[in-house]
Amino acid sequence: MTARQISFRKLMASGELVRVAGAHDALGSTLAQQAGFQAVWASSLEVSASRCLPDASVLTMTEYLAAAASMQKAINIPVVADVDTGYGNNLNVAHMVHEYEAAGITAVCIEDKLYPKVNSFAAAAQDLLPTADFVRKIGTAKAAQRGEDFYVIARCEALISRLGVAEALERCYAYADGGADAILIHSKQRDQSEIVAFLDGWDGRRPVVIVPTTYPQWSAAEAEKHGVSVVIYANQGLRATVQALRSTFGTIFADGTSLGVEDEIAPVSDVFGLQKLDDWLALEA
Amino acid sequence: MTARQISFRKLMASGELVRVAGAHDALGSTLAQQAGFQAVWASSLEVSASRCLPDASVLTMTEYLAAAASMQKAINIPVVADVDTGYGNNLNVAHMVHEYEAAGITAVCIEDKLYPKVNSFAAAAQDLLPTADFVRKIGTAKAAQRGEDFYVIARCEALISRLGVAEALERCYAYADGGADAILIHSKQRDQSEIVAFLDGWDGRRPVVIVPTTYPQWSAAEAEKHGVSVVIYANQGLRATVQALRSTFGTIFADGTSLGVEDEIAPVSDVFGLQKLDDWLALEA
Amino acid sequence: MTARQISFRKLMASGELVRVAGAHDALGSTLAQQAGFQAVWASSLEVSASRCLPDASVLTMTEYLAAAASMQKAINIPVVADVDTGYGNNLNVAHMVHEYEAAGITAVCIEDKLYPKVNSFAAAAQDLLPTADFVRKIGTAKAAQRGEDFYVIARCEALISRLGVAEALERCYAYADGGADAILIHSKQRDQSEIVAFLDGWDGRRPVVIVPTTYPQWSAAEAEKHGVSVVIYANQGLRATVQALRSTFGTIFADGTSLGVEDEIAPVSDVFGLQKLDDWLALEA
Amino acid sequence: MTARQISFRKLMASGELVRVAGAHDALGSTLAQQAGFQAVWASSLEVSASRCLPDASVLTMTEYLAAAASMQKAINIPVVADVDTGYGNNLNVAHMVHEYEAAGITAVCIEDKLYPKVNSFAAAAQDLLPTADFVRKIGTAKAAQRGEDFYVIARCEALISRLGVAEALERCYAYADGGADAILIHSKQRDQSEIVAFLDGWDGRRPVVIVPTTYPQWSAAEAEKHGVSVVIYANQGLRATVQALRSTFGTIFADGTSLGVEDEIAPVSDVFGLQKLDDWLALEA
Repeated sequence: MTARQISFRKLMASGELVRVAGAHDALGSTLAQQAGFQAVWASSLEVSASRCLPDASVLTMTEYLAAAASMQKAINIPVVADVDTGYGNNLNVAHMVHEYEAAGITAVCIEDKLYPKVNSFAAAAQDLLPTADFVRKIGTAKAAQRGEDFYVIARCEALISRLGVAEALERCYAYADGGADAILIHSKQRDQSEIVAFLDGWDGRRPVVIVPTTYPQWSAAEAEKHGVSVVIYANQGLRATVQALRSTFGTIFADGTSLGVEDEIAPVSDVFGLQKLDDWLALEA
Repeated sequence: MTARQISFRKLMASGELVRVAGAHDALGSTLAQQAGFQAVWASSLEVSASRCLPDASVLTMTEYLAAAASMQKAINIPVVADVDTGYGNNLNVAHMVHEYEAAGITAVCIEDKLYPKVNSFAAAAQDLLPTADFVRKIGTAKAAQRGEDFYVIARCEALISRLGVAEALERCYAYADGGADAILIHSKQRDQSEIVAFLDGWDGRRPVVIVPTTYPQWSAAEAEKHGVSVVIYANQGLRATVQALRSTFGTIFADGTSLGVEDEIAPVSDVFGLQKLDDWLALEA
Repeated sequence: MTARQISFRKLMASGELVRVAGAHDALGSTLAQQAGFQAVWASSLEVSASRCLPDASVLTMTEYLAAAASMQKAINIPVVADVDTGYGNNLNVAHMVHEYEAAGITAVCIEDKLYPKVNSFAAAAQDLLPTADFVRKIGTAKAAQRGEDFYVIARCEALISRLGVAEALERCYAYADGGADAILIHSKQRDQSEIVAFLDGWDGRRPVVIVPTTYPQWSAAEAEKHGVSVVIYANQGLRATVQALRSTFGTIFADGTSLGVEDEIAPVSDVFGLQKLDDWLALEA
Repeated sequence: MTARQISFRKLMASGELVRVAGAHDALGSTLAQQAGFQAVWASSLEVSASRCLPDASVLTMTEYLAAAASMQKAINIPVVADVDTGYGNNLNVAHMVHEYEAAGITAVCIEDKLYPKVNSFAAAAQDLLPTADFVRKIGTAKAAQRGEDFYVIARCEALISRLGVAEALERCYAYADGGADAILIHSKQRDQSEIVAFLDGWDGRRPVVIVPTTYPQWSAAEAEKHGVSVVIYANQGLRATVQALRSTFGTIFADGTSLGVEDEIAPVSDVFGLQKLDDWLALEA
């Protein structure tokens, strides 16, 4: 019931700022598309949270892929799959690329942490893979893709691990030269200063992706001016869902009826619309 | 990381009104439990909507079971699995019981529509299985269970199909006598009148379950007075999610930043709590 | 680790007889390819037997698709997926085509039995779908495909249901005119006479597929002379596996050692070869 | 359609030698049970080979678990699941135990290699986890189980890694004292000498499991005399399958008919028997 998807590479070719919303299922992805986002981030934080399991390499590639594939099937815009560390060594990375590409995913993002990883916002120290080893992972990923279109983003956690901007730049240049199609520079500072310092030192040889979870005061427009190509709003949808469910369930339970929430929630007909129910039923009419 | 679940049968043994919230994943189930609900409804409308596919027997038992099992693993209260028609004939029903019971689900609800079914709120006429055939399905389900604890709810769609209260009662008595542990009487009228008429004619030989989606003005307390044992708020969580995502994504896209939603959404730390991140990380500390 | 697959449509374009071996996993599919077969039949009998469940629509589309997709990933020749009745009505058929095509399967075979079906060799009477309804299913399948390449085989069970050659021909002409890319005419007679009668009456407007399980004395070469385009050896691999496992397990258990079977079974190095272990390990060398 | 399974722990309580056959699906498991084996080994070599992927942590826990669970559902004897390294660190091990136990598996075997592992028979050097770290993994696994019945076998690869019998014994004592219910000592020597040396040094504080793939001349009876409690024939079924498929497919392709293999392969009725088709069809009779 969906038309053909466009790939992330084709999207990037436009040269305009790409805004991406995080999601963990087809429903969130569809609503992100309807809101105007140009791509959807299949967030490992969101997918693991939807399972109430930690974002720490506990869910398997099979489960992350199933989520990403189901998201991609529902939308026309591309999914960018957060594939953590690639799930192990170079064998795992090659297999990951085979599987994601076969499932119709056109972009993945691999990070330079060690497997098993822990979420970047957790208060846990995390070692990074040596630069040369991660460069090899990127090369393995690129060599494993079968079509021209597949897109590999290298995510650098040097700032998260407090290694400084110089180390982040050195790593990102190596990742770019090793074949990465773009680099993602992550920060969990409360302001954008270290991201700006990174961008000031970056020569633009590859597009830069950011995830302004902790520095939302820095707008997409400002980021674009500093040379950012892609902005990911990685987990706000999940957090809105948590808040909405807490509130709705709390009200219904307290009231002993759903009457008090009826005006605040989408009607069943809206759900049917998202399911394209009429189009489907027409097949049997 | 969860303690043992209690079964739906044990929950029903308390004799008190059981309130159930619909969900489609572990996250929603956990939030329903936290809100105080005593059980969770693994809703086929919610599960199919999370995939942006119609609630019309298009997703398979495998997919509905995966959702229900993942929900049950996250919570201590029982999941009641909406298993539509049982996914086919008596072979499918027997297999369904084997699979759900093996996955730790303690209660399922089978409805008397024909496979493939369509959601009860859709504007589509739906034929029902002859009473004797559905009684046999119930008997097959009960014969297929291996433990004593498994619980089978027979859902009657006679009111949805405009067959009247007398037919609904006749069917429900047959279902009860055929082995159903409880009966679910469904209505999509805007008021509770036909449900009340049904309850007035019901002799109480089995507990009665209702789903007051279209008649929310009738409170759980009033329903209990009329003899209802279980009230399911089947899809309000989903509809709250749709609304929250529309609003959140809309604001972020319009503003070019997530700043405007930060105060309305749960913090990342709340998500980590739902994931029990600290408990998990302690395993490696 | 596999090169690109060719589609079944491209294979058929050669005009030569296509020989197909049945399998249920990647291993059997790879060995069929190595033996020279031009395609692999993802047999519902084999897949269900590998699960020790009946070939009676008890396993779901999800499970049959997972098997077919995993088979296709291991080989370069095309998988032809046995999709039973299409798993329900027109909605199920459309969804099936979306899912199989997205998974890289290039050909499916839908049969004109009612859902839930039973294996054609079982001693169970089976009604067929009215011709017009099955024609609509075929049309739905063809309308659901997104690329030009996807190939839909219409399988006629009229001979299995003892409806005679005339009915079989009438149905197959309707299926062909309704959009089927090929027709499969199935028989469980001990000789090929009714198949020959069918072929004598067939005008060749679409390629004909046969499955000579019960009439193995009729060779592929003879079948080709009568106008057959595709011969499927649907389940001999499975039956060889059953025999081999019975014999091997029996000997080991009786002897208290595997010494007596060592010369009759493939060496571990052969297994490593099928897994392409050296190629994989080179990624970490 | 199966009766209740007995657990591996209950089986071990008999005190008699337990013989175990390797398999990768329900079919092989059922044939192993029919041959007389008392348990089935859900072999990672077999499962990965059935997918034509290397036995090198490339398949995920999800996939290995799906195979093991589907095997266990078909049989009454217990499955012993080969879970490699536990798929990562202590978080992965705890999650693995939760998932396997929830799926009805009663015994798992964790090995002391590093993740990602490579098959023990491969010509690849493999480092082992420090003893204390693996002891902690075992403790984590035991702490994660919810019932009393779950059984954890600690597999020691010290002989495979050429670390000698003394190191193997030291490790196995630590594993036993750390909570392992049994230890598996693996060797790939062509004779049993290092296994005998190990057994001569073992004080019997936990049952010992062996896998005589490379030393089949040493019978189960002899092993039992030396104190072995469990003998696993880990992959002979797979290797028999490879041989049978090569031969059968080769003959059919060369002959242009399956006539030449009909007498060597199981009849379709045998397959139906393994599927319990008559029992299933009786549900609709």
